[in-house]
Amino acid sequence: MSYRPTVEFLLYQWLDAQKLPGRERFADHSRDTFDAVLDTCERIAREKYAPFNRTVDTQEPQFDGEKVILPQCTYDAQKAYAASGMLSAAQDYDIGGMQLPYTVEAAANSFFGLASISMGSGLLTVGNANLLMVHGTEAQQKVFALNEFSGRFSGTMCLSEPQAGSSLSDVATRAVPDGAGFESDPLGPRYRLKGNKMWISAGEHELTENIIHLVLAKIPGPDGKLVPGTRGISLFIVPKKLVDTEGNLTGVRNDVALAGLNHKLGWRGTTNTLLNFGEGKYPVDGEAGAVGYLVGQAGKGLHCMFHMMNEARIGIGMAATMLGLAGYYASLDYAKNRPQGRPVQNPKDKDAAAAAVVKDVAQPQVRIIEHADVKRMLLAQKSYGEGALALNLFCARLVDEQATGDSAAADEARLLLEVLTPIAKSWPSEWCLEANSLAIQIHGGYGYTRDFPVEQYWRDNRLNMIHEGTHGIQAMDLLGRKVLMENGRGLQLLAARINGTIERAIQVPALAAHANALGSALQQVGAATKAAWATGQPTDALANAVPYMQAFGHTVLAWVWLDVALATLQADPAQAQTASVGRMGAMRFFFHYELPKIGAWLQVVSSRDPTCATFPEEAF
Amino acid sequence: MSYRPTVEFLLYQWLDAQKLPGRERFADHSRDTFDAVLDTCERIAREKYAPFNRTVDTQEPQFDGEKVILPQCTYDAQKAYAASGMLSAAQDYDIGGMQLPYTVEAAANSFFGLASISMGSGLLTVGNANLLMVHGTEAQQKVFALNEFSGRFSGTMCLSEPQAGSSLSDVATRAVPDGAGFESDPLGPRYRLKGNKMWISAGEHELTENIIHLVLAKIPGPDGKLVPGTRGISLFIVPKKLVDTEGNLTGVRNDVALAGLNHKLGWRGTTNTLLNFGEGKYPVDGEAGAVGYLVGQAGKGLHCMFHMMNEARIGIGMAATMLGLAGYYASLDYAKNRPQGRPVQNPKDKDAAAAAVVKDVAQPQVRIIEHADVKRMLLAQKSYGEGALALNLFCARLVDEQATGDSAAADEARLLLEVLTPIAKSWPSEWCLEANSLAIQIHGGYGYTRDFPVEQYWRDNRLNMIHEGTHGIQAMDLLGRKVLMENGRGLQLLAARINGTIERAIQVPALAAHANALGSALQQVGAATKAAWATGQPTDALANAVPYMQAFGHTVLAWVWLDVALATLQADPAQAQTASVGRMGAMRFFFHYELPKIGAWLQVVSSRDPTCATFPEEAF
Repeated sequence: MSYRPTVEFLLYQWLDAQKLPGRERFADHSRDTFDAVLDTCERIAREKYAPFNRTVDTQEPQFDGEKVILPQCTYDAQKAYAASGMLSAAQDYDIGGMQLPYTVEAAANSFFGLASISMGSGLLTVGNANLLMVHGTEAQQKVFALNEFSGRFSGTMCLSEPQAGSSLSDVATRAVPDGAGFESDPLGPRYRLKGNKMWISAGEHELTENIIHLVLAKIPGPDGKLVPGTRGISLFIVPKKLVDTEGNLTGVRNDVALAGLNHKLGWRGTTNTLLNFGEGKYPVDGEAGAVGYLVGQAGKGLHCMFHMMNEARIGIGMAATMLGLAGYYASLDYAKNRPQGRPVQNPKDKDAAAAAVVKDVAQPQVRIIEHADVKRMLLAQKSYGEGALALNLFCARLVDEQATGDSAAADEARLLLEVLTPIAKSWPSEWCLEANSLAIQIHGGYGYTRDFPVEQYWRDNRLNMIHEGTHGIQAMDLLGRKVLMENGRGLQLLAARINGTIERAIQVPALAAHANALGSALQQVGAATKAAWATGQPTDALANAVPYMQAFGHTVLAWVWLDVALATLQADPAQAQTASVGRMGAMRFFFHYELPKIGAWLQVVSSRDPTCATFPEEAF
Repeated sequence: MSYRPTVEFLLYQWLDAQKLPGRERFADHSRDTFDAVLDTCERIAREKYAPFNRTVDTQEPQFDGEKVILPQCTYDAQKAYAASGMLSAAQDYDIGGMQLPYTVEAAANSFFGLASISMGSGLLTVGNANLLMVHGTEAQQKVFALNEFSGRFSGTMCLSEPQAGSSLSDVATRAVPDGAGFESDPLGPRYRLKGNKMWISAGEHELTENIIHLVLAKIPGPDGKLVPGTRGISLFIVPKKLVDTEGNLTGVRNDVALAGLNHKLGWRGTTNTLLNFGEGKYPVDGEAGAVGYLVGQAGKGLHCMFHMMNEARIGIGMAATMLGLAGYYASLDYAKNRPQGRPVQNPKDKDAAAAAVVKDVAQPQVRIIEHADVKRMLLAQKSYGEGALALNLFCARLVDEQATGDSAAADEARLLLEVLTPIAKSWPSEWCLEANSLAIQIHGGYGYTRDFPVEQYWRDNRLNMIHEGTHGIQAMDLLGRKVLMENGRGLQLLAARINGTIERAIQVPALAAHANALGSALQQVGAATKAAWATGQPTDALANAVPYMQAFGHTVLAWVWLDVALATLQADPAQAQTASVGRMGAMRFFFHYELPKIGAWLQVVSSRDPTCATFPEEAF
C-alpha cells in the first residue's frame, strides 16, 4: 500500500501545501500539524472503516417499519469520525474548528474513501453546515450548523424529486407560510412543506440525534401557482425532529416520513431514501405539513445550494478516485503474489520468431505482474487514479486560494474552479470506474467473485457518473456555460496555466516531446470549442457535449501529469527513487496510450456531427 | 422490442440463410422451418426465462450440505428447453436431431440470452456432447452424448485449476490406470483421477439425472512425473454417477465432490463450483479416485477440447451481445416513457446564442429520448449490440460453411474463423458491457437500483471478458498466432473480404466516404501488424496485444456495419422503412464516433511502445 507517500508527494512536493501556513488564516499550522491530521484519519480509516467495507455491502440498510437498521460498524465508524474533529476541521477556531486548509481536509478525508466509500465520513453533513454558515442566520448557524459540526446532528441535501430527477426547474414541493406569525420565528420564516424527495442519502437513520434536511421547494404566488423554472426555488431547513432555540429536541417529530429505501447496485453503506414531506404521518400541532425554516432569500434557493456545489463535486471526484486507487492497490497486491503462466520468450533463432510464441514450460510459473498485459492494466489504473487524485487536490488548492488569496488570485481561482469542476467530478467517475474494471480483469475469475474486494469497488464506483449531476449534465455545464462564461476568460486562464507548464517542460529533454503533444492537444481543444459554437446554435454545439468533455478531460489530465512530472524531476532529477520512476512511467503511459484518444472525440465535436441529434426516435 | 425483425434481417437479407437448404445436409429445411424454430425459442424464452431473470439473481445457488438448491424456475426453464429439441437440433436425423444449420441454431438460442443469460440453455451440455460425437467411441457417444442431447444428462468442461487458471500447461490433475484391465472397459480406457477443478459451471446440481464432466488431466510417465506443458494433457469422461453400457445409473456415486460454490458478481443463475476429483469422499470399490474414461488418444486432450472452442467462443460472444441488446431495449423503453427536462433551444437572436443555453420552462417536460445525449447513448448501444450480433451470426455462418461448403470454401471458412473468433468473443465482451453501462446511465439514479434490470445486465456481462479465455489471452491468440498462421493467409483472406465490401460500397454515394474510411483503417491495421513484428521478437510484438485487438475489432465491426448497410440499401434503396433508417444511422454512428478510435490504439502497437513491458515492478 503506497498511498500515503503518493498523497504526501502531491501535497508537499507538487502543491507546496507546507506554504499555506504563510496565509493568516492558517498561520498556526505547519507541515507537522497537517501530517498529524493525516495520521489521525489514516488510523481511524484503517481501524474503523477498512475492516467493515464488505459488511456494509452485505448488510445493507433495512427498514423494520419504524427504524432503519444499520450494522454496528457504521455507528462506530461515524462516532470515531465525529470524535476526530474532522466535521469542523475547516471552521474558525471560535466555533471549535481548526482552520484547516481545504486541501489538507480533502487529503485527510481521502483515507476514508480508500477504506470504505459508502460508510460515510460527513460529506453531506459538512456541506449542509457549510451552506448554513454562509447563508443562514446566526440562530440557524448556532442551532443547526454547530450541532452538525459536533456530530450531534447530521445533514442531507433534498433536491431531486421522483418526477423530475436532474430537472430542478420542475421541483413541485410546495412551501406555504405557517400561520400569521410565520415570519417572526426565531429560527427563520416558518413554512409548511408538502412534496416528495428522491435519492436522499442518509435521509433516515438513528446514527445521530437529529437529521437536518436542506430542502428545495417553491412558495406559491398569490394565484396559488408555482413559478415555473428555477427562479421560484427557495431553500428550507427541515429538521426530522423539531428543536428549540438552544438546539434541544422539543419531543415533537416533524412531518417527514420515510416512503422507502432505495436498493442499490453498490454504495450500500449509505442509506438512500425516498422521503415524504408533509403527508400528515406526523402532524405538527394537529396539521399536516413539514415545518421548514427559510434560508436566505425566497426565490434564491438554488443560488444558496450551488454555493456548495464545487466542494460537493470535488468530493464526488475524490470518491471515484479513491475507489479507483483501492482497486489499483488490491490488484497490484494480487498481481505480485499470484503465480500463473510464463513470460513470452524471444527465440534464439530470430527467423523462427514469427512462427509461434514460445514459452518454456520447464521453467516454474511466474507471478502475473511479470506479464506485459498485466503491467499495462496496472499502469492504466495508476495513471487514472493518481492523475485524478492530483487533479482533485489541485482543485482543492484552488478552493483555498479562492478563500485566502489576494483578490486577483482569488478571482482567478474562482474562475478556474468553474471550468475545472466538471472535469474533477466527471473524469474520475468515468476513468476510475474503468480502472476498477481492469482490477477485476487482473484477478481473472477470482475478481468476479465476492471473495475479493474489487467487484464491490466497481459496483460502488458506478454511482459517481450519476449523482451530483450526471455525465451529460456536467458536459452541458462545461461546453454550454463554463467555457463561454466571462467571454471565455476561464478557458483562457486554464490555457495560460497549461502553456506555463508546457514552457517549463519543453526545456527538459525527458519531457519535451510530451510538452509538444500537450500543446497540440490544447490547440485541438481550443479549435474544437470554436468549431462547436461556430453556428452560434446551442443545438449544434451541445449535441456532442460528452465527447467534448472526454477530450477536454484527457487534455487536463495530461497537463496535470506533465506538471507532476516536472515536480518529480525537480525533487529527484536522477529518478533515484522508485516512486519517481513510477510517476514518470505513469506520465508516459498517459501521453502514449491515453492522450491520443482525443482525436476521435474531437472529430465529432468539430464537425458538429448531427448523427445522434437528428436520429429519428422511431428508427431505434 | 424490435429484436425479432433485427435477427431476421441479418439471417435472411444479409446472410441469405434461406439458401442453406440448397445444401444436402439441410435439404429438408426452408425458411418456414427456420422460422418455426425461432418461434418456438422466442416463446419458451418469453414464458420460461424472461419472467425469472431477477429471481435467479436474488436466489443464487445454495448448498445445503448435500444438494445444491436452485429456484424452481430453473428446473422449469431447462425442462422446457430440453423438450424443445434444441439440445440436439444440429445433430443428424438418425440420432434424433433436426440437422439445423448452426447459423439458425445460434439465432434461435439468442432469445434465451436476451431473456435470461444465466439460467442456461445448454451451451456446455451441447458443446460437451458435440465433442464426444467427434472424438468419442461409439459407446461413449451412445451412453453419454445421446443422453445429453435428450436432456437426461447435462455436461461440463473441467479445464481450470485453482493454482493455474488460464495456464493449462500447469494442469496438475493426475489420471492413473484403474487396475489391470483398465484398457478393456467398454466405455473406454478406465483411469482414476485426482485433482481440483475450479470455475466449473453447472458442476453440481439436481437438474438432470447425471452430470457428465469432461476433464483435462495428465497421465504420469513411467517415472511417476507429469509431462510439463500442454503436450501431456489427456481428456476424460468423468460422470458424477457411474453408468452401465446402456446408460443406466448403476447406483454407485463416483468420487467427485463439491468443494464449494463460487459467489459471483453476476450470472448467478448458473451454479459455479470448485470440484474435488478423487479425494475419497465417495470411494468407488473402496478406493479413492474418480473413475474416468479416456477420450481420444492420451496426450491429445487439448486438441480434442479446442475442437469445440470456436463454437464455445461464439457462444460467449453471443451471450455478451444479447446482454448488450437487453440493456439497449430496456433503456430505449425507459427513454421513450420518462419525461424529464426540456430540449436545448436555439435563440431567435443568433448573437445571444453563445451567452447561455436557453430552455423554455413554460413548456412541459419532454421525454428524455428527445435529448441529443440520450440519443447518443442509445445509438452507441444499438451500434455495439446489433454490430456484435451481425459479427457473431456471420461467424456462425462460417461454421456451417466449414461443415457443408466445398473443400475450398470450407477451408477458407476454417481460416477466417481462426482469425475472427478472438474478435467474436472479445469485442462484444468489451463493448456490449460498455453498452450496459450506458443503459444504466440513461436510467439515471433508477438504473443504479435493483428495481430496474439494467444493473443486472451490467453485472452479468462483466464475466464475458474473463471466461473462455480472457481478453489478454484472446489478444495473444490473435496477434501471436492467428494473424501469422499459414504465412498470414487468414489475415489476407479477411482483407480480401473487407476489400470486396469496400469495392461495392464505394459505388454507392451514401457509403463511399465510409468505404474510404474502412480502406484506410484496414491499411493501418495491416501496417501495424507488420510493425509489431518488425523485430521478429514476440516480447516486442505482444507487449501491446490488447490495443491491437481493440483496433482490429473496431475495424472488423466497421466492415460488418458497412456490409450490413449494403444489404439494407439493396433491400430498401429509398430507406422507406424506419428499420432501414435505423441501421444506416447506427452504421454512420460507428464510422463517425467509433472507428476513429483505432488511431490511438495502433500508435502504441506500431511503435512497439515499451512503456508497460519495461516498467519495473517496484515502481508501481
